[in-house]
Amino acid sequence: MISNTGITISVDAMGGDHGPSVVLPGAAIALQRHPGTRFVLFGQSEAVLPVLDQHPELKAASTFHHCEISIRMDDKPSQALRQGRYKSSMWRAIEAVKTHEADVAVSAGNTGALMAMAKFCLRTMANIERPAIAAIWPTLRGESIVLDVGATIGADAQQLIDFSMMGGAMARALFGVERPTVGLLNIGVEEVKGQDEIREAGRLLKETPIPGIDYRGFVEGDDLGQGTVDVVVTEGFTGNIALKTAEGTARQIGAYLKAAMNRTWMARAGYLLARSAFQRLRDKMDPRKVNGGVFLGLNGIVIKSHGGTDAEGIAAAIDLAHAMARHGLREKIEADLENFHLRVSDDVPATPESSSQ
Amino acid sequence: MISNTGITISVDAMGGDHGPSVVLPGAAIALQRHPGTRFVLFGQSEAVLPVLDQHPELKAASTFHHCEISIRMDDKPSQALRQGRYKSSMWRAIEAVKTHEADVAVSAGNTGALMAMAKFCLRTMANIERPAIAAIWPTLRGESIVLDVGATIGADAQQLIDFSMMGGAMARALFGVERPTVGLLNIGVEEVKGQDEIREAGRLLKETPIPGIDYRGFVEGDDLGQGTVDVVVTEGFTGNIALKTAEGTARQIGAYLKAAMNRTWMARAGYLLARSAFQRLRDKMDPRKVNGGVFLGLNGIVIKSHGGTDAEGIAAAIDLAHAMARHGLREKIEADLENFHLRVSDDVPATPESSSQ
Repeated sequence: MISNTGITISVDAMGGDHGPSVVLPGAAIALQRHPGTRFVLFGQSEAVLPVLDQHPELKAASTFHHCEISIRMDDKPSQALRQGRYKSSMWRAIEAVKTHEADVAVSAGNTGALMAMAKFCLRTMANIERPAIAAIWPTLRGESIVLDVGATIGADAQQLIDFSMMGGAMARALFGVERPTVGLLNIGVEEVKGQDEIREAGRLLKETPIPGIDYRGFVEGDDLGQGTVDVVVTEGFTGNIALKTAEGTARQIGAYLKAAMNRTWMARAGYLLARSAFQRLRDKMDPRKVNGGVFLGLNGIVIKSHGGTDAEGIAAAIDLAHAMARHGLREKIEADLENFHLRVSDDVPATPESSSQ
Repeated sequence: MISNTGITISVDAMGGDHGPSVVLPGAAIALQRHPGTRFVLFGQSEAVLPVLDQHPELKAASTFHHCEISIRMDDKPSQALRQGRYKSSMWRAIEAVKTHEADVAVSAGNTGALMAMAKFCLRTMANIERPAIAAIWPTLRGESIVLDVGATIGADAQQLIDFSMMGGAMARALFGVERPTVGLLNIGVEEVKGQDEIREAGRLLKETPIPGIDYRGFVEGDDLGQGTVDVVVTEGFTGNIALKTAEGTARQIGAYLKAAMNRTWMARAGYLLARSAFQRLRDKMDPRKVNGGVFLGLNGIVIKSHGGTDAEGIAAAIDLAHAMARHGLREKIEADLENFHLRVSDDVPATPESSSQ
């Protein structure tokens, strides 16, 4: 089946806790949902080819490249770079984006190594100091984007503004809203709250509005699940803690619910009657459904899947990669950045009169 | 009924969104659970006395002091201090702890004002630079203590160690464990992760073990709900975001569950059958059950209740205050601090030989 989307996705087949045995079935599921997608697969042939043979449709849609080296889940970023640069399956999946062989790369490998390699190979965009990892956050209103969830610790005001722009571009691509709402994560909504960087970023976003986003001020931790804004911006340490706290809380409540429904025969009978409702709830809370961190701010899009996920989770990460490529996320970010930095750039000489306006 | 506990609790009757109409019924519930408790109530007599008359047992157990001034929920800390020092119900409830008229103070007033007044009135303990707010966190194992959840933004290594000690003392008081386990909240468990302050605190806690606590290294956001350690230590910004994110996630899942159970008649029938199980779940998730942030590191214990809670929530905060006083939390912290600082103090001269060991 030929589709007119013509999207090619490079995949690190060795990534994640289970490697090809989960990554390839995941790609096969995604291919069914997006017929016409092409794949470039990287991995050790002895591990990849037997699994690929079991998925003839995926095999027909794929080009395979043997790579001797795989990055382990516990490799340190520096170690991964030293041993895996230029030749590991992770590196080569990223490199395929750089050489335009692929539109987007997907790996379930370890986050630190993947980010280090992606930065080294793709480099940060002009006007961006630091990349960020954006997560899709399920909310009562639908979904929001939260960034940074762990690329770097700390962010100054300018970096928070960059994150706002990049998250805004991603929201436009993913949710199809024209001017996504953006909030800065803080411990109160008053202007006096929070670290200097956050207050400064808030002041700048108010004083110099960015055309593509609708800045709404500070939001708090409980606004994340409510979906108060389309994009929640924070530095990577706080974002990572918030993300894992929410995941842990969801698991905790799931465990409470399971225990409660098993306690009496009445509860068990009720559970059976309401089974489809519980299934819906489980679907809602299924972390695999929103699997995939998007690396933003590099000259190319890389999607990080959870390492411990199954084929469905990998498929969700590839779905996300497909959406990001289909909607031209990278080009959207580049255009936004160029527009914005042209407007505020110091390189544009201004007469004293005009600059004081 | 006379009890041998002899605990006196001072209460800011004007605090919270609903003032005396919720605070006093809350105190009345707590009194039923802890007969023999004495209360010192502060507030405007026109607002307090009519409600107090409806609770004769509470009235009999209480001393009331009229205060003309009440701190509003949106007063800034500086404003509250300026207008309410020495004379507001909030100040006087705190002051009662300083003058030993009460063992512990409770207020549902605004956090910033309460902390500012508590610091000004009670002063920080010797050897403690900054107070912290500790929250009780419901976990799969029971409960943990998390601090700081919002007293101050940022903390250096020494402050994180102080928080570990204070949290450890609180865990001993509240959970009755001899050497509570303590973890530092971080974005990974490896020693290289996190901000300098966190890594430095981790190194020091490993190298110079504190007798009263069992330091277990770094924990992540999802360890909070699992109850991996008894005490989770973090600086106030991250702690506040984590706390509100967890509360928001719990509310979000509650809303999903409600919607799912209302969708079909089968689900509704199942819900009715399993009603007691859902009630147990609701109890587990009830934020009122664990209401109360404990101010640690001051010369006196102050409990902050959620402002928007009802009488049950206030009662839970007073229960917590009672437990903290009953177990001598303040004395436990003081003893721990003295022990520890005696051991590592710079004031103890060391010969060059011994100091280099």
